Parts: sequence; C-alpha cells; structure tokens
Amino acid sequence: MTAAKKILALCGGVGGAKLALGLSHILGNDELTIVVNTGDDFDHLGMRICPDIDTVTYTLAGIVNPETGWGRADETGSFMEALDTLGGEDWFYLGDKDLALHVARTHRLGAGQSLSQITESIAKRLSIGPRILPMSDDPVATMVETKTGTLAFQHYFVRERCEPKVTGFYFDGIDNAKPHPDLLALLADQALDSVIICPSNPFVSIDPILSLAGVREALRDCPAPIIAVSPIVGGKAVKGPTAKMMTELDLAPTSVEVLKRYRDLLDGFVLDERDLDDLEQIKSLVAHVDVRDTLMLTLDHKKTLARAIIEFSAGCQ
Amino acid sequence: MTAAKKILALCGGVGGAKLALGLSHILGNDELTIVVNTGDDFDHLGMRICPDIDTVTYTLAGIVNPETGWGRADETGSFMEALDTLGGEDWFYLGDKDLALHVARTHRLGAGQSLSQITESIAKRLSIGPRILPMSDDPVATMVETKTGTLAFQHYFVRERCEPKVTGFYFDGIDNAKPHPDLLALLADQALDSVIICPSNPFVSIDPILSLAGVREALRDCPAPIIAVSPIVGGKAVKGPTAKMMTELDLAPTSVEVLKRYRDLLDGFVLDERDLDDLEQIKSLVAHVDVRDTLMLTLDHKKTLARAIIEFSAGCQ
Repeated sequence: MTAAKKILALCGGVGGAKLALGLSHILGNDELTIVVNTGDDFDHLGMRICPDIDTVTYTLAGIVNPETGWGRADETGSFMEALDTLGGEDWFYLGDKDLALHVARTHRLGAGQSLSQITESIAKRLSIGPRILPMSDDPVATMVETKTGTLAFQHYFVRERCEPKVTGFYFDGIDNAKPHPDLLALLADQALDSVIICPSNPFVSIDPILSLAGVREALRDCPAPIIAVSPIVGGKAVKGPTAKMMTELDLAPTSVEVLKRYRDLLDGFVLDERDLDDLEQIKSLVAHVDVRDTLMLTLDHKKTLARAIIEFSAGCQ
Repeated sequence: MTAAKKILALCGGVGGAKLALGLSHILGNDELTIVVNTGDDFDHLGMRICPDIDTVTYTLAGIVNPETGWGRADETGSFMEALDTLGGEDWFYLGDKDLALHVARTHRLGAGQSLSQITESIAKRLSIGPRILPMSDDPVATMVETKTGTLAFQHYFVRERCEPKVTGFYFDGIDNAKPHPDLLALLADQALDSVIICPSNPFVSIDPILSLAGVREALRDCPAPIIAVSPIVGGKAVKGPTAKMMTELDLAPTSVEVLKRYRDLLDGFVLDERDLDDLEQIKSLVAHVDVRDTLMLTLDHKKTLARAIIEFSAGCQ
C-alpha cells in the first residue's frame, strides 16, 4: 500500500476540468483538491453564475454536456424559450437543469452561505469525491480590455463571442479578495506532493488565482513541485480564446509564451507532443519537461495523462 | 355604436381568472381593468412569486395549463428534477417555462421596477389586451392562522395542502401598503360602469384587496354599481379551500355567507343556479340578484357569463 497523495490542481473551465476528471479517477477522493477560478463569475438576471465551478462540478459528476464541455447533458431549453418571449436577456444560454444550480446557489448566497460552502454541498449532492474549492469566497471579476472598450468576461466571451481585440486584463475586486484559506493551508502543507496548473487559459483562468494576495508567494515558498500543463496544442488552443488572445497581445501562441507566465513558479512543464519545435526553448526555461499527448479526447486519455502527470511531478522535486 | 365601457374586476387566482378571461372576450382592451390580489405573493428560492398575477396573466395570454388552471400549458419539469437532485426545496412546483417569469420579475424588481410596471410589460409581451393591475406595489403577505400555528399562505395552501384547520387570517404589511393609485382613481372615475368582484376566495383573494387603506371607503363612495359573483357552486367551492375555510370558521359554506362579507358594498349579487335554496335570503340582503350557471367549463360559458354579468350590473344602478 502506497502512502496517500496530496495533489493540488489549479484550473479554469473546460480544459482544466478534463484533466481534473482524469486526476479524480487516478487519485482517491481525499488526495485531490481542485482550486477553481472564480474570475468568470457574474450576476445575470439576478442570479450568481460561476461558469468554471459549474463546468468542473458537472464534469466530475459525469453530467456535463459531452459536446460542449460545459452545461449539462440531456438538457432542455424551455426556460430560454419562455424568457425570449418575455423579452429577457438571452445572450447567455441557461438550460433548465443548469438553472437549478444557479437558483439554488443564488438563494443560498443570499442566505449568507459562502460560495465554498455551497460548492461543497452541491458537490456532495452530486456524489463528487475530490474537493472543489473556489479560489476565493470574495467576488473577483475578470475584465477584458479591448480595442473597443472594457468588457466583463462573460460579455466578452459569450455575448461578443471573443471578437473584440484584447489589449489587456484586470481583475476587479482582486485587492479585497482573500484566497480561500484552505488554498494557502494546502500550499504550506509539508505533505503536499505537487501543484498542477491545469491546461487552462493563463490570462483569464490561472492568472486570477495567482493574482490573489499571497498566492504567488505561497507557491514560491511551497515545498512541493509545481508543474504546468500547456493549454496550447499544435500552436492552437484546444478550445477557447487563449491563442487568439496571445496573438492580439503580440505574443506568439506557443507553449513557450505560456510557460513564461509561470516561469518564476515552475519546476516542471508538460508540453504537447505536437509542439516539439518548442522543446529546446522550453528546456532552457524550466528544470523538468515532459512531452505528452495532452488532447484528452476520451476518459482513457484523461486518465492516462493524469497518471503520467502525477508521475512526472513526483520527479520534479 | 355603443359608448365604451369601463369595467373594474377584482380577482384572485383560478376562478377569478376564468371570469376575467370571459370579460376580456366581451370587452375591448381599454374597457377592462383587472385588479389582482398580491397577498399570495411570496419569496421562494430567492425569487418573487406572484401566483394570482401569474394565473391571470397566463389565462389571458391563452397559455395557462388547462388541466390545473394555473401554471403553463405544455410545461416541462427539468428544473424541478435537477433542483431535487441538488437538495433544493421542492414543495412548490416551478415549471421550466413558468420559471422564466419568476426570474425575469425578480431581476426587474431588484433593478428597482415596480410590480405593476413589470406586470404591464410582461402582459404586453404576451399580447394581453386588458390591464392587469396588482392591488399594490407594496408587499402584503396573507397569513393563515391555524390550530397548529400561523402559516404564510403558500405554505398553508401548497406545502400543507390546506390541511391545517383555519382559525383566522391577517395580512402582513397591509398597514404600510398603498393600494395602486390607478385602482383608487378608477373607483373615483364618474365614467366607471361597474365593479365586479370575481368568484374568488373571499378570505384570501378579495379581502386583501378590500383591506388596503382606503379601498373599502372608495368602493362605498364609488358611483358605479358593485356586484359580486359567488365562488360557491352547489354549496361547494369550485376549486380551492373556500368552503373548507368557511366550515372551519363556523360559517355555512353558502353564497349567503360570502355575500355577508361584502354586504356593505354590494348593489348586486350573482348566485349560481345550483344554490336556489339561498335565493330568498340573498334577496333580503342585497338589492339586485341574478341567478346563473357560473361554472365556466368552456370559453363559451365564460363569455356567456361575462356578458350576462355586464348586463346585470348595468341594471343594478
């Protein structure tokens, strides 16, 4: 019998959730904590919506829509249809089942429960094993600066379909938001085996977590190896606007540029096998490099990659 | 060409909505104002739910569930199913389409719109002709006193299925609630042709309206005839707990007892043809009596009754 592991994953939405699912199959329930970005969270139609937490929750519960990677499988659309008739804002799709989560969460937040309490209670109801932890219980709003003005993240991402050209980002509320104390406690835990930065958007999924007061410092001081999995595969983002954002910010859409964002923190980096051109440069920037097929098209892929990453991280000490 | 009429209907939920629908078919859009009880309104799962306004709205929009008389036709239940999984309160059924109205209204209330503004805007979106006016824009909560304690109306009505024995009622907030100014203006309007008290529950649908400061006085001073349609048919309530409440309050479940509640206001009373035993006593209590089949099983019934009631009220001057 091997000793229990203690793994911390930092993640955003769809890409991160896929690796988190793989990790959840490899690790015991108490061995994995998934800290999720909340910068995407927003108020819509009076409800608090937490897209990344929901994607991770649905993915780990096995009820995510397999075609989109977000929202629920076998969803119905009566609410949106009726809302449209009533003249409500319809740019953000809310499935009928999905809505139950937003209504329940908004109600509980109004009753004084914290986002992390609610997230934990919902995960329990959905029989999710690992702990899903919001990066903070305080609101943080990722703002996207574009050539045509500043947009709240979901307005940029969903309503404007990532079309405006990005010039920068900031995280509204970040100065007053405290990282969840269990995140800091885990980073200071001598028994922590590794920190895995999931293949998520570095600007809008990982940066909000790293920008919380004390998190970068805690990562730097953390005795466990820290590794990142590149969200770039074959010079493109698997999903979402990562590569487009990089180009607009005058950065090459490469793993090298992703790595540079975490360089001060990393002990290891997982490069996709389609990006071998970047290998030498990556090697010059980080102590340990692993090359893998990171595309995770099936559950088996996710498990295989998760296993490889845990092994790799163990050697990054 | 006859002169335009000006009719005011006071109503609660299902029974009142049926007559309101009949009236809406007989009268022009500008000829009918339906003032609706809001004492049933309550906050549930963080949403503001207005059962009587919604029933009247759905009925007049032609989208009400014909089997229940409330909620929407062709409804789906994905939200409730998912809410149940998440452990949310599921005693009050919320269909997926119906939910759009609650979410939109709650959102708009939060943004500072009044209930009457929202009700009007939703009615317009649903192409409803007559005006649907909440009795007040201020919250009033009908409380049901029972032998086992005091219950908010929906808790009594839905959660407890009207089982606790009623000992009385009060309307929380009634002292601070102003009747909608357009209700008072209409009652003072010399051109008003008649006030019709719909066949609704006298205790929990009509009494809240009458208990608003100044409404009884305005009705007494109103130059137009005031008539009431009995909600009792054959010694029973067509739907809902009216007769059960009367029995528990030591009142006979008869039209006579309903009439007595409005006696100081009424010029006329419409008795169901199944309750002819009450006719003599009714005649001794009110100036004008009309006997009709009030059951309104079809749209034709509703229209026929509405037409008869308008004619009857014209003769109650």
